[in-house]
Amino acid sequence: MKPKAISFVAKSGTGKTTLLEKVIAALKARGYRVGVVKHDAHRFDIDHPGKDSHRLTAAGADTMLICSSEKLAVVKQHTVAPTIEELLPAYFFDVDIVLTEGFKQSSLPKIELYRRERSGTLLCRGQEHDPTLVAVASDTALELDVPVLDLNNAGEVADFIEANLLK
Amino acid sequence: MKPKAISFVAKSGTGKTTLLEKVIAALKARGYRVGVVKHDAHRFDIDHPGKDSHRLTAAGADTMLICSSEKLAVVKQHTVAPTIEELLPAYFFDVDIVLTEGFKQSSLPKIELYRRERSGTLLCRGQEHDPTLVAVASDTALELDVPVLDLNNAGEVADFIEANLLK
Repeated sequence: MKPKAISFVAKSGTGKTTLLEKVIAALKARGYRVGVVKHDAHRFDIDHPGKDSHRLTAAGADTMLICSSEKLAVVKQHTVAPTIEELLPAYFFDVDIVLTEGFKQSSLPKIELYRRERSGTLLCRGQEHDPTLVAVASDTALELDVPVLDLNNAGEVADFIEANLLK
Repeated sequence: MKPKAISFVAKSGTGKTTLLEKVIAALKARGYRVGVVKHDAHRFDIDHPGKDSHRLTAAGADTMLICSSEKLAVVKQHTVAPTIEELLPAYFFDVDIVLTEGFKQSSLPKIELYRRERSGTLLCRGQEHDPTLVAVASDTALELDVPVLDLNNAGEVADFIEANLLK
């Protein structure tokens, strides 16, 4: 699959976004082009009421794109959410690696976050053995059939992604 | 070119976004899927500081996508802005018509807005005769080699687009 992608999964409140921020920064510092996908179970707000771009979306545009010399933004309405397998080639054709948040049911390789105080059993090593799990990032020692990385060391997580997906 | 597209051009302050809002709504009411592209010469703000999606962009993601059951949003950084000819097939594969604001130098067919109090000479009928001009939407009578539509009647502008591009 192009581009290469890996998903970060965890129970809610485990700190996925915080770890993603640090891993993005670490991979960027190594010269990679990085994409990120966040699945949002709720309605999300983006854009600011009153801005021209927001006015055009509010008027009913199915797809609104605003472009400047430094970036573009797209807001696209849909009745059926695209799958991650559809999103990756459509929007990430120009990055080296995509980090995704969630998408537990997808075929992407996965890193599960484990936090001793919150996590209980692992999502990917519970009643079902998820074969797409490639590592766990944990704040405590675990005995597992996949590598256990340090949840508080984003550089180590970036090393793992670099060694396994980018080299 | 797919999808079909037409650009609205005018001097600044002529009311492009206001007309676009009304034309979008009119075409949507007729059952069309409508895309819109706004060129922004300045830095634009989109997204809200503190939201997860904004945090991921701020962390350095070259492309950030957030997806819910009803819509998706993409923010993509670039060093060279794509042309409108590149943007249309990449992002508007699933709409019937794209209305663009600006892009005066493109090969798209154009409707120029003319407002008596503001416009002076027409951009597309000044020193250069722009062959891509297909109509003018004006608030005053004009003698021209292309149809003159009523600037204050978005339904008439939608009729013109429907008759010339969609049927």
